Amino acid sequence: MIRVVLLGTGNMAHHLYDAFSSTERVQVVQVVGRNKEALKHFENTSSDFGSIAQADIYIIAVNDLSISTVKQELTEINGLIVHTSGSVPIDDLKPNKNIGIFYPLQTFSKARKVDFWTVPICIEANSQENLNLLATLAKTISHRLYEINSEQRKTIHLAAVFANNFTNHLYDIAHEICVAHQVPFEILKPLILETAQKVQSHPPSSMQTGPARRNDTETIAKHLEQLGNQKQKEIYTLLSESIKENYGEKL
Amino acid sequence: MIRVVLLGTGNMAHHLYDAFSSTERVQVVQVVGRNKEALKHFENTSSDFGSIAQADIYIIAVNDLSISTVKQELTEINGLIVHTSGSVPIDDLKPNKNIGIFYPLQTFSKARKVDFWTVPICIEANSQENLNLLATLAKTISHRLYEINSEQRKTIHLAAVFANNFTNHLYDIAHEICVAHQVPFEILKPLILETAQKVQSHPPSSMQTGPARRNDTETIAKHLEQLGNQKQKEIYTLLSESIKENYGEKL
Ligand SMILES: NC(=O)c1ccc[n+]([C@@H]2O[C@H](COP(=O)([O-])OP(=O)(O)OC[C@H]3O[C@@H](n4cnc5c(N)ncnc54)[C@H](OP(=O)(O)O)[C@@H]3O)[C@@H](O)[C@H]2O)c1
Ligand SMILES: NC(=O)c1ccc[n+]([C@@H]2O[C@H](COP(=O)([O-])OP(=O)(O)OC[C@H]3O[C@@H](n4cnc5c(N)ncnc54)[C@H](OP(=O)(O)O)[C@@H]3O)[C@@H](O)[C@H]2O)c1
Repeated sequence: MIRVVLLGTGNMAHHLYDAFSSTERVQVVQVVGRNKEALKHFENTSSDFGSIAQADIYIIAVNDLSISTVKQELTEINGLIVHTSGSVPIDDLKPNKNIGIFYPLQTFSKARKVDFWTVPICIEANSQENLNLLATLAKTISHRLYEINSEQRKTIHLAAVFANNFTNHLYDIAHEICVAHQVPFEILKPLILETAQKVQSHPPSSMQTGPARRNDTETIAKHLEQLGNQKQKEIYTLLSESIKENYGEKL
Repeated sequence: MIRVVLLGTGNMAHHLYDAFSSTERVQVVQVVGRNKEALKHFENTSSDFGSIAQADIYIIAVNDLSISTVKQELTEINGLIVHTSGSVPIDDLKPNKNIGIFYPLQTFSKARKVDFWTVPICIEANSQENLNLLATLAKTISHRLYEINSEQRKTIHLAAVFANNFTNHLYDIAHEICVAHQVPFEILKPLILETAQKVQSHPPSSMQTGPARRNDTETIAKHLEQLGNQKQKEIYTLLSESIKENYGEKL
């Protein structure tokens, strides 16, 4: 039985709490947060960062910029302290003796349930013993465990900005185009899903299609005319150029 | 029983053929193509565009630029002639008397099976009778039928470039970043899928996250430093600006 304290009450804390609650091998002994309303979702809660329960692992699941603030409260603690961020280095948890990272690579929001078993968990620690403990913890909730150092994690976080944040923004532009021309966005949803499903089993470059991929300058020109918005024109032009360059290289 | 002739042997023809073959209500009486190797996948084939079988509907499923060429072979035909393109106007099928569009909005490749029942089919025709016939045909293979005029179809095609072609290119950039830093692309796949799944039930704007969304200039600067490639830096900058603008407006 691994005893865990969760610090934070946001999206990550919710999803971790639900995942840990579904296994007998983990006990969430306390959830600590400053937000009393948000604490109501959990059991064994406290809003006093000064009196934290005994545990094997302390998971700091607060905004990246607040990780070091919350960490100040944990200087007396001997257990393993980890955070869940893709971009904060492990060294930010020093000078504590037992430190690590427990970064679930997924996009969480309270509105959607996620099957945690499919979520890749990136772990890192300052000793083999601590790494083993994190691996044991990760395996209680996920089938996908990766040992990733802070340098690699920075890479993953950057790649995730393209694969998630920017991709979602393209969906948003597609949505705007539909709304502007009274076409239901609904109609694009199967395409969006299939596009994501294709790269589950094929390299994205082999799945590239469209006017830029076949250098169809006539369609590209027509599309640019159709776009009402200057930023959208710029994005269309830049991404088309980038596809053309890539495809040119690969020929 | 609707009798169909398919013209073309590419991705679209394959998927339509498989879908029609699974229903008793449609009979593909002939597949006509210039590519003899590709014709082997089908039954009742011909490579002679000059002797086309009698049918109710003739579906031209060749490259956009060749639609008008293939159409030349069909001047003597009385049945309904349609093409499957998102961007070619219906008027390009004139002066035939019975013309229309049968545009399945999905990304097809021979390597992947698609559940056609979920594919939105956009139909348009030059008469109510022809439209009814296309609706009947569409309903034999899909639950999602949309009556869409050529103007709206242009909008949808443009939106699809963002939702499919450009999105796939972002996956490709994420892939390149991973490869350049020896991180397995594998690790991003659940994130890619969940990002697409989220917008099946939520508007994309409500799902936007990331450094640009929260105007985290420090992370943005670090990411730009990390990117090795000039085009990638430009794309990162432009999409971040665009997100910031959108989010600023919506505040
Ligand atoms: N959500 C995701 O998809 C995701 C994915 C991977 C990694 N992560 C990482 O997980 C961590 C948490 O993210 P999240 O999505 O859960 O964020 P979130 O939903 O915004 O929640 C942030 C939590 O941190 C608390 N907090 C912020 N500043 C604090 C402070 N100074 N003292 C105490 N508590 C403070 C907030 O309390 P208040 O409610 O009082 O503000 C809230 O409970 C971050 O490091 C993030 O990078 C998130
Ligand atoms: N694939 C998709 O995801 C998708 C989605 C929606 C709409 N569409 C539309 O469906 C249509 C077909 O696309 P596709 O993906 O099936 O293309 P494809 O896989 O490249 O196949 C094109 C077919 O057209 C034939 N063709 C080209 N020029 C010809 C000519 N002058 N005479 C006779 N045959 C000719 C090709 O024969 P060869 O093998 O001899 O070149 C091939 O059989 C296009 O209008 C496209 O816009 C495609």
